[in-house]
Amino acid sequence: MDNIKIFCPASVSNVSCGFDVLGFCLDGIGDEMIINKTSKKGINISKIIGADLSKDSNKNVASIAASAILKDLKLNHGFDFQIIKKIKPGSGIGSSAASAAGAVFGINKLIGEPYNRNELIKFALEGEKHASQAEHADNLAPVLLGGFTLVRSNKTLDIIKLPCPKELFVTILHPEIELKTSHARAILKKSIPLNNLVKQSGNLGALVSALYTNDYDLLSRSLKDYIIEPLRSKLIPEFDLLKKTAINSGALGSGISGSGPSIFALSKGRDTAIRVGEAMKNVVKNLPIKHKIYVSKINQNGIQAI
Amino acid sequence: MDNIKIFCPASVSNVSCGFDVLGFCLDGIGDEMIINKTSKKGINISKIIGADLSKDSNKNVASIAASAILKDLKLNHGFDFQIIKKIKPGSGIGSSAASAAGAVFGINKLIGEPYNRNELIKFALEGEKHASQAEHADNLAPVLLGGFTLVRSNKTLDIIKLPCPKELFVTILHPEIELKTSHARAILKKSIPLNNLVKQSGNLGALVSALYTNDYDLLSRSLKDYIIEPLRSKLIPEFDLLKKTAINSGALGSGISGSGPSIFALSKGRDTAIRVGEAMKNVVKNLPIKHKIYVSKINQNGIQAI
Repeated sequence: MDNIKIFCPASVSNVSCGFDVLGFCLDGIGDEMIINKTSKKGINISKIIGADLSKDSNKNVASIAASAILKDLKLNHGFDFQIIKKIKPGSGIGSSAASAAGAVFGINKLIGEPYNRNELIKFALEGEKHASQAEHADNLAPVLLGGFTLVRSNKTLDIIKLPCPKELFVTILHPEIELKTSHARAILKKSIPLNNLVKQSGNLGALVSALYTNDYDLLSRSLKDYIIEPLRSKLIPEFDLLKKTAINSGALGSGISGSGPSIFALSKGRDTAIRVGEAMKNVVKNLPIKHKIYVSKINQNGIQAI
Repeated sequence: MDNIKIFCPASVSNVSCGFDVLGFCLDGIGDEMIINKTSKKGINISKIIGADLSKDSNKNVASIAASAILKDLKLNHGFDFQIIKKIKPGSGIGSSAASAAGAVFGINKLIGEPYNRNELIKFALEGEKHASQAEHADNLAPVLLGGFTLVRSNKTLDIIKLPCPKELFVTILHPEIELKTSHARAILKKSIPLNNLVKQSGNLGALVSALYTNDYDLLSRSLKDYIIEPLRSKLIPEFDLLKKTAINSGALGSGISGSGPSIFALSKGRDTAIRVGEAMKNVVKNLPIKHKIYVSKINQNGIQAI
C-alpha cells in the first residue's frame, strides 16, 4: 500500500464534569487526509485546503506528530501529506487532534501497522502539545479509540474506553470565531476551592456510572461543571442562553466543547438532537457571527481509512 | 413488633480518590443497637456500652438522627435505645454513621417501614452533621445501602450504588488514637491546584469504571490520592511505611479510611487481605500505640436486623 485516504473525526473533550480527562468522538464531522509514500525521506506537506495553516513541517501539527512516529522507525522512504481541513482550527472540536491522529494513523497503516491504536496516542500527543501548549490526550483518545474515553493519567497515557448508550446524539453549535486553546487555558484559575472538587468528583463518577448503565437521567444530572464553564463561558457569545435553550428543548445537558467556542449538547435520540440544534440556531440568528450546527451520533469506530 | 436488634456496620469513606463522595460498607465490624418502643413519647438512651458518649438526646448522634425521623411523623409513643459501641468514635471507620443509620433504620422497621433505605439517609445525616460538623453522606450511604456507593450530590442526596468485584477484600488497621473528623477536616487546604483536580478526576473515573468491569489492575492503578492524603497522613503514625508495606504484601492499594487514623487496604482475595494485615501489624508492633486489624469482604447488604 503506497497511499491512503483517511477520515479524521472531530471530537468533544471535557464534557462538562471531565476537565482534561473525558472526551467522545463525533461522526460525519472531520478532516480528510491523503498520505502518499515518497522516495524522499522525511515529511512533506504538499497541500492544505480549508485552513490557513503552515506547511512548514516543524510548525504543522500533523507533520510534528508524523515526525514523532518516524523517530521510532528506520525507514528508507518518506511521506507526502495533503490535508483537507473541514474542522476549523480553534473551534473547540479537536481540530489539532484530528490532524495529529490522522498523521500517525495513516503512517502506521502504510507501514503495516506496527502499533495499535492505543500506542499511537503518544506520537500524536507530540503534535497536540505543539498546538495547545499542554499535554492532554482528551481529544486524541476518542479520535483514535472511538466512543467515549477517559484519560486516567495524562502522564502514563493510561486510557480507558467507556461504553455509552446507543441512543446518545450530539448537537454542536459552532460560532465562527477563533478561540485559541492556549488563550482559553490562560484564563483558568490555577487553584480551585476544595468544595468544587467534591461536586465535580460526584458528577464525574456519576457520569461514568451512567455510561455503564445506560441511565439517561443520571447522565443528565451529572452533566454539570462548576469549575471551568463559569470562566470560559464568558468568551462565548450568548452561552448561558444557548445552554438553557438546549436543555429546554430536550437536551440531557449542554456545555463547552473542549476549550470552546463550540457548544455541545447531548440528547436521547436523533430527533431531539436536531430539535435542540434548531432551537440554538434560532437564538443566534441575529448575532453578527456566523454559526454552524452539526448533529452526530457518538462515533464508536474513531478514525478510519476511507 | 415492639423491639429490634440491629447490626450497624462500619464503613470506609473517601477511598483514596473519592474525597467526600465514595464509600463502602464493612462486614463483621460494627455496633449493635437495641431499640424498644416505649409508651412515653420521644427518645431515651438507657444504655451505652463500649464508648464514653453522651446519653443526652440533644447531644448523641443516634438520638439526633432519631429525632429527625420523628419530626416527620405523628406517633403516640417513643423509643428507648441501648447502644453497644464496638466501633471506636474517631477511628475513621464511620462510628457516627453507624449510630445515626442504626437509629433511623431501627425506628423505620418498628413503625412498618414507611421509608426506603435511600430516604432514610437524609434523617441519618442530621446525626452525622452533629458529629462531624459537615454534611456528608459518604459513610451513611454505604451503611444504609450496602456495597460501594457514590454520592453524586451531597446537597440533593443523589446517591448511586456501584457494583464491585466479588473477590474484593478489605484490611483495616486501626491505631487506637482518636482523631476527630472536625480536626482532620480543619487541616485541609481550602483550595487545591487545578492540576490535582485533573489527576483526581482521572483516578476517580477509572475507579468507577474498574468497579463495573471487575478490572483489579485498573482498580489498583486508580487508588491514588494527591490531595487529601499528603496532608492527613502526617497525623497517622508510620502511615507511609504502612501503605508501602500493604502494597508490597499484595494489596491493590491502600489509603486513609475516612478522615483517619484507620488505614484501609483493598486486596483481591481473603488470603491476600489477611497477609496484608499481618505485614502491617508487624510494622507497628513496637510502637507505643495499640493497633487492631480487621479483615472483611465488602458488605453488600448494609445495615440489618439481627
